[in-house]
Amino acid sequence: MTAPTIAELAAALAAGRTTSVALTEQALANIERHQQAGGTAFLSVDAAGALAQARAADQTRAAGLVASPLAGLPVSVKDLFDVRGQVTRAGSKALDGNAPAQADAPAVARLRAAGAVLIGRTNMSEFAFSGLGFNPHYGTPRAPFDAERISGGSTSGGAVSVAEEMAVATLGTDTGGSIRIPSAFCGLTGFKPTASRVPLDGAVPLSTSLDSAGPLARSVACCAAVDAVLSGETLDTRPAPLRGLRLYVTRDFVFDGIDAEVGQAFEATVARLSAQGAQIIEFSFAELRRLPEINAAGGLTAAEAWTWHRELLQSKGDQYDQRVAQRIRRGEKLSATDYIVLLAERRAMQQRAADLLRDADAWLMPSVAVRPPRLDALTRDEDFFAINGLVLRNPSVINFLDGCATSLPMGEGMGLGVCGLRGSDARVLQVSAAIEAALG
Amino acid sequence: MTAPTIAELAAALAAGRTTSVALTEQALANIERHQQAGGTAFLSVDAAGALAQARAADQTRAAGLVASPLAGLPVSVKDLFDVRGQVTRAGSKALDGNAPAQADAPAVARLRAAGAVLIGRTNMSEFAFSGLGFNPHYGTPRAPFDAERISGGSTSGGAVSVAEEMAVATLGTDTGGSIRIPSAFCGLTGFKPTASRVPLDGAVPLSTSLDSAGPLARSVACCAAVDAVLSGETLDTRPAPLRGLRLYVTRDFVFDGIDAEVGQAFEATVARLSAQGAQIIEFSFAELRRLPEINAAGGLTAAEAWTWHRELLQSKGDQYDQRVAQRIRRGEKLSATDYIVLLAERRAMQQRAADLLRDADAWLMPSVAVRPPRLDALTRDEDFFAINGLVLRNPSVINFLDGCATSLPMGEGMGLGVCGLRGSDARVLQVSAAIEAALG
Repeated sequence: MTAPTIAELAAALAAGRTTSVALTEQALANIERHQQAGGTAFLSVDAAGALAQARAADQTRAAGLVASPLAGLPVSVKDLFDVRGQVTRAGSKALDGNAPAQADAPAVARLRAAGAVLIGRTNMSEFAFSGLGFNPHYGTPRAPFDAERISGGSTSGGAVSVAEEMAVATLGTDTGGSIRIPSAFCGLTGFKPTASRVPLDGAVPLSTSLDSAGPLARSVACCAAVDAVLSGETLDTRPAPLRGLRLYVTRDFVFDGIDAEVGQAFEATVARLSAQGAQIIEFSFAELRRLPEINAAGGLTAAEAWTWHRELLQSKGDQYDQRVAQRIRRGEKLSATDYIVLLAERRAMQQRAADLLRDADAWLMPSVAVRPPRLDALTRDEDFFAINGLVLRNPSVINFLDGCATSLPMGEGMGLGVCGLRGSDARVLQVSAAIEAALG
Repeated sequence: MTAPTIAELAAALAAGRTTSVALTEQALANIERHQQAGGTAFLSVDAAGALAQARAADQTRAAGLVASPLAGLPVSVKDLFDVRGQVTRAGSKALDGNAPAQADAPAVARLRAAGAVLIGRTNMSEFAFSGLGFNPHYGTPRAPFDAERISGGSTSGGAVSVAEEMAVATLGTDTGGSIRIPSAFCGLTGFKPTASRVPLDGAVPLSTSLDSAGPLARSVACCAAVDAVLSGETLDTRPAPLRGLRLYVTRDFVFDGIDAEVGQAFEATVARLSAQGAQIIEFSFAELRRLPEINAAGGLTAAEAWTWHRELLQSKGDQYDQRVAQRIRRGEKLSATDYIVLLAERRAMQQRAADLLRDADAWLMPSVAVRPPRLDALTRDEDFFAINGLVLRNPSVINFLDGCATSLPMGEGMGLGVCGLRGSDARVLQVSAAIEAALG
C-alpha cells in the first residue's frame, strides 16, 4: 500500500478521519522503530514539541483555521537550517559548541507558519559536502530497499524520513544534487527550485552560488505544495498535456559511464512517453564535456566553502570528516581570477543552454547515472571520491546552469530528471506532473 | 554666451535655423583649433565620416524623419568603445596591433541609430584606470579654465570635447568616478546610471562589477536625452518640486581632507536649496570609513582588471603606463576568498545604505573633494597615487553601492553629486533637474 500524499492527508484531516496528533504519534512511532533498528535518519527528534504543535494544529483546525495543505502534517528539516532554540550542527561535530539558534531560518519559519509539525532534524553529509550521505560522525543512512546500499545525499536522513513514513515531506538543500540524488536512490520525488526561489538565510552555506532549498516528498503535487510554502509563491502546477510536449534529451556527458540498468530504465521511460504522444527531441550539448575541466580545481564550491570554513577549519579542522576538509581546503589555492573565470564560464554555459533549449518544454536525463552504491564500496578514499563525482555529475549540471529540476521515481533506486533553466520552475512542475501521470 | 543644449540645437535644426552639416563643420573647426593649440582631447577624428553622417542626417530630416533629439548632433565617443572599422585602443599603446572592430558596441550602435554624428574618439586615462586623465602616451587633457590643471578622468578627452564645443555630448564610462570627476573639473553635467542600465558589451572592461556607461553634457535634460538613447528606455525626468524634497547629507568620510573651497561651495549650495524649501537632512554613515580597508588590496577593480589584462601584461606589459600596470598587477595576489569577501562586504554596505537612505529623495555630496590638481603635482608616483585616491574617493562610493548619480556644476572646477541607490535613476534625474533649476 502506497503511503498517502499531502493532499490525501489534508483531506483526511479535513474530513475528521484522522488528527494531527494521530499522524504525529504514528510518525514518532515509526522514528522509534527506525532508530531501534539502527537507523540514522534523525540527528534529533523533538517529540514533545511536535506533539504540542500537533495539538495546536488540531485545535486551530477545530476553530476553522487551516493555514495551508501542510497544516498538522509532520515535516522533517535538514540539520542545515536554524530552528529556534536548537543548535544547528550541519551533520558535523565542529559546530557542537555553538549557541542555539535565536530564530528559525526563514524557510523553517514559513513551514511553521503554514502549520507544519516540525518533527525533527535529519542527518546529512557533513556540511552537505557529498552526494552520498556518508557521515562518519552520525552514521550513513541506507537506501530503504537495501540496507547494504546508501541513501544518497546530502539530504540523506531527510529522504529516509519520508521513505519510511517518519515525515510526509522534508526540507532539503541541493548544491549539486543533494535533493535529487537521495530522491532517486530512495524512490521519492524531489524538487530543486531555481536557487533564488527559496531564502537560504539561516542555513549553513556550502556554495552561495549553487545552493538551493526545496522539498523531497511523494509526488509532484506534494513537492509543489511544500514549494509554495517555502517560496511564498503558488505556481500553476497543473499537469501540462503530454501530447506534443517537446522533451529534449542529449546523450552528451550525462550518459558517460552510465549503469546499464539506469540507461535501460531511462530508454524505457522515454519510449513510454513517446508512445503517449510526447515529442522526444535529441540534441547535442558537447560543451557539457568541459565541466570537469572548468571545475578541476574545485570550482565555485571549493572557493565559497573555503571562505565560510577557513576559520573553523583552523580551530576545529581535526573534528571534520577529513574527506570533507580535504575538498574544502582546495579552495584556499584558488585565486580571484580563477573565481572570476569560473563565473564567466558559468555565464557562457548558461547562454549556450538557453540557446539550445529555447524551444524545450523540459530536458530529461537520468537524475543520477548509477544505482545506489554499496556502503562498503566507499572504504577507500579514491573510490569515495570517484563514486561521489559520478553520482553528483548529472544533477550538478543544473546547479551550474542555475536551473531547476525534479527527480521522479524511475524504478528501484533510480530517478528521472525533469530539468529546466532559471525561472522555469512552473513549467518543470507542470511537465513533471504530466510525466508522473503518464507513468503512473 | 553659454553653449546650446541638445534641446536648443534640436529646435534650431527643426526650425531650419541651422543644419547638421553646419554644426558638424563648426565642431570640426573647433577640434582643429584645439589640436593646433596642443590640445589632446581626441585620439582620432573621423572628419569625412562625420560630414557624411551629417549630410545623411540633414537629408533624413528633410524627408521628415527625426530619429531622436540627438539626430544630426556631433557626439564624441570614449576610446573604450568599439566603433565599426576602427581599432579600439583604450588610451593605450598595447592594443595598437589589434584588428579593427567588426561591429559597433551596442551603446555606439544606439547613438548611430539615433542619428548622432560620431565625430571622433576621445582621450582617456589608459584603460580608464585613474580619475585624473593622466596619459603618458597621448598627452593629458587640461581643465578648460586653467591649462596648468588636469581635466580629470578617465573620460578626460570626452569632457574637454564637450566643454570646448567639439561635441554636444560624449559617451563616457564610470567605474569609480570617470564620468563625474571630469564633469566636475570641466564645468559639465554628467550622469553615471545604475550599471545595468546601459550595455557595456564591446567596451574594454576595467571592473566588470563597477563599470557603467553614460553621458557628459551641458544640462540634466541633455544627459537624460542621451541616456534614453543609450539605455533604450525613456525615463520621466521632469523636475521634482524642490519644496519639501528630502536631500540627505553626511559629513562622514566624503568630507575628510576636503578643499576649503569645495566645502564652502557645497555649504553655500545646500543653503540655497534649503532657502528655497528643500529639506536638508544630515545623517551618519560611519561604515563608509571602512571602504579604504575593504579595498586595501586593490578591490574588485584589481581582481577584475588583472583577469582581463593578465595575458596582455605578459606580452606587452612594457608598453603600459607603469602606474597603470602596477595597480592592475595587484590583482594577481588576490585569492578567491578575498574576492568573495569583497562581494559580501559590498552587499552588506548596500543593505546599510538602503536602510539609511530609505526615505531620501537624493543624497548630496561634493562630487570630488578637491579642485582640479595641477599637472605638475603628479610628477612623483606617490603624489600621483595619493591624489588619484582622493579624487576617486567620493564618486567611487556610488559605484561600490551599485548606485547612480549626476554631477552638476558647483562653481569653477567643482561638482555637486546628486546620488541614489541602484535603480533610482529616474528619481536622481528628477531631483537633479530641480536642483539645476533652483541654482540656475
